[in-house]
Amino acid sequence: MLTREVEVQDEFGQRRTMHIPNERPLTIYVDKREIVTLMTLGAAPELLVLGYLRNQQLVESLDDVESVTVDWDVGAAAVKTFGGGPDIDARTARRIVTTGCGQGTMFGTLMDQIDSVRLPPAATARIRQSTLQVLNEAMRRTDSVHRRAGSVHGCALFRGTEMLTFVEDVGRHNAIDTIAGWMWMNSGSSLGQGGDKVFYTTGRLTSEMVTKAAQLGVPIVISRNGVTQMGYELATRLGMTLFGRASQRHFICYCGFDRFDAEPEPARPPVHVVSG
Amino acid sequence: MLTREVEVQDEFGQRRTMHIPNERPLTIYVDKREIVTLMTLGAAPELLVLGYLRNQQLVESLDDVESVTVDWDVGAAAVKTFGGGPDIDARTARRIVTTGCGQGTMFGTLMDQIDSVRLPPAATARIRQSTLQVLNEAMRRTDSVHRRAGSVHGCALFRGTEMLTFVEDVGRHNAIDTIAGWMWMNSGSSLGQGGDKVFYTTGRLTSEMVTKAAQLGVPIVISRNGVTQMGYELATRLGMTLFGRASQRHFICYCGFDRFDAEPEPARPPVHVVSG
Repeated sequence: MLTREVEVQDEFGQRRTMHIPNERPLTIYVDKREIVTLMTLGAAPELLVLGYLRNQQLVESLDDVESVTVDWDVGAAAVKTFGGGPDIDARTARRIVTTGCGQGTMFGTLMDQIDSVRLPPAATARIRQSTLQVLNEAMRRTDSVHRRAGSVHGCALFRGTEMLTFVEDVGRHNAIDTIAGWMWMNSGSSLGQGGDKVFYTTGRLTSEMVTKAAQLGVPIVISRNGVTQMGYELATRLGMTLFGRASQRHFICYCGFDRFDAEPEPARPPVHVVSG
Repeated sequence: MLTREVEVQDEFGQRRTMHIPNERPLTIYVDKREIVTLMTLGAAPELLVLGYLRNQQLVESLDDVESVTVDWDVGAAAVKTFGGGPDIDARTARRIVTTGCGQGTMFGTLMDQIDSVRLPPAATARIRQSTLQVLNEAMRRTDSVHRRAGSVHGCALFRGTEMLTFVEDVGRHNAIDTIAGWMWMNSGSSLGQGGDKVFYTTGRLTSEMVTKAAQLGVPIVISRNGVTQMGYELATRLGMTLFGRASQRHFICYCGFDRFDAEPEPARPPVHVVSG
């Protein structure tokens, strides 16, 4: 049950029912140590947990994870590692509370490691304007909790015009972490590689969204929303291409113009207003 | 400088400049102990720091705070307490990463303390539909970073139709924390009391936004956005009134109908489509 119905009243004094998104706490334990409680829609909790561990760099490799067991009755996700989860304490020592919706916590060493990110060159990892517009349309058409209940963020991973995976959550961090978990689970194939992918989010491009996309190796990021200064700075430093305000045929390319094959729309025809 | 200009390119192939909101890290130290790093627009950093300490219940009372010194050159806010900040370590031991934009971290004991919140009765703390619509218009008119650069959330505190304070930040948690700091600074007067106030946010009403408003003693909360299940549950339990989708004359009252004096809009006239 990703949504529930509640009775509301509108400006006409009408009582009616509306859907609202479910949101439930999920506490992650790694080898019985409590790590964090995420508030989540819970559509794909195992992938969320894996992606969280990956993006926070609490676990080095998927091979270190023996099992993830989610029990909604107690709101717990128990992660068992091979070898007892080395230096979890050291890795969780510092934290940054970020601007993101959702799990806006990034442990201290994360920002340092951005500099080791290497994205594929602009010559090979590019996007055409017509492709971008197809992705806008694909996102619009995707059946979603948002359409039914609002108040969630959606994320998708594309290869060319193919939508590989789509996830919604109350926080966009949970959504991108779930995609990170999906990519980890597919790391045996080209699906798990970021270089030829495009990451699409309905949420804003803040520093940590850009950071997470970069860590996944994805060079092109599109948002229905805008960008903040640090998201812009990081993307520029990393040679990523950021698009914002993406909807229908419209978009803004903020940076990384060298990965973008513009196919400019014809200029809007002048509007003639005939009165009378 | 709350915004900066960057060069962008649009779907017509036009290069032009756009404003984006600034976002900078601010690390809070309490008696030289590092607590957290917030990503913030930085409009009112001292109030943000005070409100953060208040909402996370890291400091009991404003009287415990000797000084807050913000130094943007190093991105640090140094808080000095009288008596050396008792049991900070114990208070920061558990954390919940929530769905909010911005500082979505709530330390463990917070949720327990919700049950001690007492809001004024519905007989005295109410809102009329016409007042709500005036507040919608006041929010729309407020000159803002959002209008210039997008990608920020705004919060305001109202008494009747009077906007007492308004703040924007990259995360809506920073915005409400700044308002909490403002109320703390005004706790000597009725401005600091929540009972006769209305809290307005452009962001979603998730569990921790509702929690924070409740902790400030504010019984009525309005959002331009929607509500999640846990925000709804908490508000219902606390007897708060939540409005969402508020814009111009439109709104949805999700719960707490007993504080709301409906003045229903006339039903929409039927639309006659004349073809030919």
